[in-house]
Amino acid sequence: MPSQKIFATPQDAEAAFYEALERCDADSMMTVWAEDEEVTCIHPGGPRLVGYATIRDAWRNIFAHGMRLRLRLSQATTVSTPFAVVSTVLEYFSTADDQAISAPVVATNVYVRSVAGWRMVAHHASAVPPTSISDDSRILH
Amino acid sequence: MPSQKIFATPQDAEAAFYEALERCDADSMMTVWAEDEEVTCIHPGGPRLVGYATIRDAWRNIFAHGMRLRLRLSQATTVSTPFAVVSTVLEYFSTADDQAISAPVVATNVYVRSVAGWRMVAHHASAVPPTSISDDSRILH
Repeated sequence: MPSQKIFATPQDAEAAFYEALERCDADSMMTVWAEDEEVTCIHPGGPRLVGYATIRDAWRNIFAHGMRLRLRLSQATTVSTPFAVVSTVLEYFSTADDQAISAPVVATNVYVRSVAGWRMVAHHASAVPPTSISDDSRILH
Repeated sequence: MPSQKIFATPQDAEAAFYEALERCDADSMMTVWAEDEEVTCIHPGGPRLVGYATIRDAWRNIFAHGMRLRLRLSQATTVSTPFAVVSTVLEYFSTADDQAISAPVVATNVYVRSVAGWRMVAHHASAVPPTSISDDSRILH
């Protein structure tokens, strides 16, 4: 059961989210998400997906048709409360030989603390205009 | 001082956010935002803006150059915790004679409860593919 995994911190949940994304692993991806009807996921250029099952099906589809990519994260921000954390991060996707495959993406990620640990309740990603990228010295991943 | 306003609920803060957006009122807009260095705002197709001052300057610029528009909201979702609420909503902008001026926008909004009431800490908006819009019967605004 994917839902049995416990993330003790929002950082653990975020790390698991990006590991699953890089590995194209839908089961691991869905251990990160809260099993709620109003969780939301917006992929770059895509519609709003609402609810655990809809989001799961979309990830499965993406991973079934996608290529495995290297992912680099930088310039994170965080706003924390006792039961919820908002982070944003810039995502850079590249092929194995480090060729960028698209414009960078900015993601807003929200995690909520439950009895089952920290889970993602929202992921909103959109492409960033290339001219807006500033210093990239804070590589996180 | 814009920051003296108190929003008793996240719904009050969200209503004030959209009223300020529709009225092109930067001062009212900034009463909604938390005065924090890591608050984030992403306009459709735009870069990530980080920090209260940066976000304020961007709204002032948008409102100085923009036209006043009618705004209709629909299909809200909400995830609530005691100190933070995540909402998403579809935004439809139109001119006074109800002509749509762009594709709909989906926004992810995060509000945090502080001693100064509920404040926005993240706004992430991006255009929605027109084909993805489903039933629009739940008009909110």
